[in-house]
Amino acid sequence: MSEATEPILPKIQSPDDLKGLTQIQLIQLSNELRQFIIDEVSCNPGHFGASLGVVELTVALHYVFNVPDDQIIWDVGHQAYGHKILTGRRDLFHTNRKKGGISGYPSPSESEYDSFGVGHSSTSISAALGIAMAHKLNKRKNQVVAVIGDGSMTAGMAFEGLNNAGVLKPDFLVVLNDNQMAIDPNVGAFSEYLLDISTSRTYNKVKEDVWNFIGRIGKWGPNAQQTIQKIDNAIKSMILRHSNLFESLNFRYFGPVDGHDVVYLARLLEDIKKIPGPKLLHVLTVKGKGFKQAEVNQTAFHAPGKFDKETGEIIKEETPLSTPPLYQDVFGKTIIELAKKNDKIVGITPAMPSGCSLNLMAEVMPGRMFDVGIAEQHAVTFSAGLAKQGMIPFCNIYSSFMQRAYDQVVHDVALQNLDVIFCLDRAGVVGADGATHQGAFDISFFRCIPNIIVSAPMNEIELRNLMYTAQLGKGPFVIRYPRGHGVISNWQAPFEEIPVGKGEELIEGHDVALLALGHPVNFALDASKALLEEGIVSGVYNMRFAKPLDKELLHSVFKKYKNIITIEDGSVSGGFGSAVLEFMCDHNYNSKVIRLGIPDTFIEHATQHQQYVICGFDTENIVETAKKMMEPVAKKLHKAR
Amino acid sequence: MSEATEPILPKIQSPDDLKGLTQIQLIQLSNELRQFIIDEVSCNPGHFGASLGVVELTVALHYVFNVPDDQIIWDVGHQAYGHKILTGRRDLFHTNRKKGGISGYPSPSESEYDSFGVGHSSTSISAALGIAMAHKLNKRKNQVVAVIGDGSMTAGMAFEGLNNAGVLKPDFLVVLNDNQMAIDPNVGAFSEYLLDISTSRTYNKVKEDVWNFIGRIGKWGPNAQQTIQKIDNAIKSMILRHSNLFESLNFRYFGPVDGHDVVYLARLLEDIKKIPGPKLLHVLTVKGKGFKQAEVNQTAFHAPGKFDKETGEIIKEETPLSTPPLYQDVFGKTIIELAKKNDKIVGITPAMPSGCSLNLMAEVMPGRMFDVGIAEQHAVTFSAGLAKQGMIPFCNIYSSFMQRAYDQVVHDVALQNLDVIFCLDRAGVVGADGATHQGAFDISFFRCIPNIIVSAPMNEIELRNLMYTAQLGKGPFVIRYPRGHGVISNWQAPFEEIPVGKGEELIEGHDVALLALGHPVNFALDASKALLEEGIVSGVYNMRFAKPLDKELLHSVFKKYKNIITIEDGSVSGGFGSAVLEFMCDHNYNSKVIRLGIPDTFIEHATQHQQYVICGFDTENIVETAKKMMEPVAKKLHKAR
Repeated sequence: MSEATEPILPKIQSPDDLKGLTQIQLIQLSNELRQFIIDEVSCNPGHFGASLGVVELTVALHYVFNVPDDQIIWDVGHQAYGHKILTGRRDLFHTNRKKGGISGYPSPSESEYDSFGVGHSSTSISAALGIAMAHKLNKRKNQVVAVIGDGSMTAGMAFEGLNNAGVLKPDFLVVLNDNQMAIDPNVGAFSEYLLDISTSRTYNKVKEDVWNFIGRIGKWGPNAQQTIQKIDNAIKSMILRHSNLFESLNFRYFGPVDGHDVVYLARLLEDIKKIPGPKLLHVLTVKGKGFKQAEVNQTAFHAPGKFDKETGEIIKEETPLSTPPLYQDVFGKTIIELAKKNDKIVGITPAMPSGCSLNLMAEVMPGRMFDVGIAEQHAVTFSAGLAKQGMIPFCNIYSSFMQRAYDQVVHDVALQNLDVIFCLDRAGVVGADGATHQGAFDISFFRCIPNIIVSAPMNEIELRNLMYTAQLGKGPFVIRYPRGHGVISNWQAPFEEIPVGKGEELIEGHDVALLALGHPVNFALDASKALLEEGIVSGVYNMRFAKPLDKELLHSVFKKYKNIITIEDGSVSGGFGSAVLEFMCDHNYNSKVIRLGIPDTFIEHATQHQQYVICGFDTENIVETAKKMMEPVAKKLHKAR
Repeated sequence: MSEATEPILPKIQSPDDLKGLTQIQLIQLSNELRQFIIDEVSCNPGHFGASLGVVELTVALHYVFNVPDDQIIWDVGHQAYGHKILTGRRDLFHTNRKKGGISGYPSPSESEYDSFGVGHSSTSISAALGIAMAHKLNKRKNQVVAVIGDGSMTAGMAFEGLNNAGVLKPDFLVVLNDNQMAIDPNVGAFSEYLLDISTSRTYNKVKEDVWNFIGRIGKWGPNAQQTIQKIDNAIKSMILRHSNLFESLNFRYFGPVDGHDVVYLARLLEDIKKIPGPKLLHVLTVKGKGFKQAEVNQTAFHAPGKFDKETGEIIKEETPLSTPPLYQDVFGKTIIELAKKNDKIVGITPAMPSGCSLNLMAEVMPGRMFDVGIAEQHAVTFSAGLAKQGMIPFCNIYSSFMQRAYDQVVHDVALQNLDVIFCLDRAGVVGADGATHQGAFDISFFRCIPNIIVSAPMNEIELRNLMYTAQLGKGPFVIRYPRGHGVISNWQAPFEEIPVGKGEELIEGHDVALLALGHPVNFALDASKALLEEGIVSGVYNMRFAKPLDKELLHSVFKKYKNIITIEDGSVSGGFGSAVLEFMCDHNYNSKVIRLGIPDTFIEHATQHQQYVICGFDTENIVETAKKMMEPVAKKLHKAR
């Protein structure tokens, strides 16, 4: 950009301001937008590579289409930073993913330019098709575009959308943003297929076959080869058209085209816009485009945290040496230990090897770690198939993505009582990813399923021991644990079996019992100390299992305490606390019980600790709750004096 | 079959007994097996058309493969009657789908020949892939076969399985049983694609294109056309290979072949068996093959009930004229009434138009009813897209299939607070379909989702009024109702809005309160009468909403009654009863509450009424529960005398 050129980006208040730009200016705007994203995300962590990869596509789409009258649906949503910046949120962008700030994902409640809420992958085609059919029914002529990555395409839901679109045939456009990556490199036959059509591999193979064949039939006349050569181009176009998977599904296929040529993209979109029916534009992009280190190390720069925008060095949080490990790393290292001893153990992840640390296992024993792509449903039933033949699959799925495979857990695992171990990473509140990603519901939705064991470790050692216990073959076994760090630096203790359905008393008390599940047991321990200073003697119970409950322990608690607080990092509707209520009523106890956990509302982005406070199950809230609970008792004592 | 020929089927105790049969005998066995299925299912209702269509395939598979050492996974499972009959369950077959009898679906707990439990569609490829990978890891050479219908192929999960198989590449076979039908005619671009390759339509088109082109280039020499004609066959095979969707996904594709030629199928399977890697055999079959009426009317004969095996006449249950309608028909007729008044209303079903009676709407207003194929995930997000543009979608999904789209309800509907109405047919226990199909969990798994309304009508009129209320735009709205008949013949009353979260007192009482949700309110009414005869005055409350609860009504109930029974046709873990407990504890009441509903176990096949009794929430069990509850009171009264 020449120094004399005036910047364009600061003048873009809405997409309307793009419409009059020249070709040169579109290029300039793309460069400025890219630099703005680099400047912002380097100091204010968020998703990076995906949005850099679609800078030109974003500018071209907003140049050609008229959002919000037209609709653009950004699959997964973390590629939509450029879109947000061009649609009136540039000045707010520094609040991205922060409490009270803008969301890291498109959100219709935040802006009318966000046509549909997205956060989980592979929803865009179905949503766009619904919107397009609504336009058709309402006789409106608006344009609808779904922008979907090749990673998201591996989820069956995307295929369901294509399949339905191919018969409903409304006017709408799917832009396939093909960068050969999910968070980790994209896997699957479909991904190989895209590479194939991008490189004309099949076409070349057909040509070669024909060529060889013709060579063999030289006896039919010397002109045969020559003739074929002449009609080569005609055959090429016909074969490409007829052999295209998307064309098979009744989409008009265009591409593959260079996704970083904004002028060409804009011209192409302008043309395609006029063509009726379902269309697919295959765009080749580079994840992290324009920031060298992000192009080279795409997985690390998917969401890199803070980094030096000059050198590209990722700035590690300064943490003391004694900082406890991430729960995910405890999982990732422990499964290797266990798998070395038990050759039936395998690891399964739907496209999250680095997110859940199964990449560690893939390095050491690659044949026993299966990254199945973004395909949670398949991940679960594939695990069930493995278990049916005596393998011990650890199927690691983020809690909120587990929602994608609920039926498979019921129908393929629990009903057949198979030894599949579900490790639910990111269970509970997750911080900056916000509402779409909260792991709020798993205790409630799993607790009603017969045969299943639902557990949550209070720390790293317990995570290890639950994993050890589960692989002994106890039936379907859920182990849920949060995003982030545990509490014990020196966690690599020898394995111990934990009896299924057994909790433990950590602190004896008599005034109030704190029944906690999972990581919040640590909050209860802190609260107990604070309460003691106020003269309230609380008992702390590490319940470990939401199902089956430790009935023996609960009998002793209900016999002893008139005041009980349940604490969990999950929904209070039907969760662990409700299980305790069910126990109480089934056994005719009647203590006062207060349930702390995630309330019946969607929790927006903030830090994880802020979310604990918002939900009201952080240490301080536990203390306050206990004090209030004891007030009537205190009053009585006071009166008695 | 000549009269002199001795029957073969009675001698088949296990698949081993097939191995020595001659080609002629394989044909004879197929005929006998078909007749056996006709004889049995005509008088003992079950699934019919699907199993008739795969008779020859079943015989051929068991002739070639060695189950249980090899594994055959029958997708959906209702095509597996022939398999059951050939694997030791012929003499038990008259108990099919009855209490204590064999299951209508493959079930590993019933027989080692059932390699994997199936009931919901589209799981077979994932399960087979898991089994095949286990064999690979265990260095076993067993064969694995998934038999999947073209209808099941439309679910994204099947695509996820293919996509993963195409990179893992173990030895296994997918048999695509293509009859162009789900329960209703199969829909979707993929289905059209299968028809295309079955009829060589694409190939013919390519050939024609080439031909025309060559015609135009006659100037290149008179021999050009002649040459091309000669190499026609070579090009044909190359194009078919390279343009095949399954080949694109790294499967070796074979077919399409006649699925009713048992000898040819056996020979083909024997050959394919030896080929390594993932293979797909495309078999063309006719649903209902060999029973004329079933071939002609495939939807009616999917599961026809009793029929005359000579005339093919379906024998209607003898029901008095005054029999109340099926809930599904009340839904199907009411949506038409509403849609005539409100042009924003549309209907959506994932492949169940006749099962949920949306076929009625399709007849009257075809453009507003969307059968999206077996694709629950897409159905929900497609509905969300429609709602985002102001349409009012009634998305009808059986309760147990709703499990397939749980994440989409959370992420695409509830989080965006869209006016999508979910009508959950087959909610609660479903009778003969058994464990895989019970609609047991929906109240528990929906109740934890913010923004959502969860309701259940006690009868047909209330179903109508809830539907009327929901389309006024109240946010995400679930209406669950059971399989089978309602209680009111004269149900077509004028619409009335029901205030959201409002229940009603039907009978005033004082001894015990019966808080019931949905159809079981009728059981509570009957129980109340019976209790009155025993001198117990029970109140009956039609709660209507599991979420939000009618707090006003509950306050009055808890103030008045020390004994409360909750009754629901859903899981007692986290369900409506648990919601009542949560209310009680949150508001410091402490009545004795007993929750009746579906216990924490999978409920096997039986009649619906038998299942009510097994679960313990039929009228008699309610009476017994109330009497026991009152015993301490009665004793006290007795003592006082």
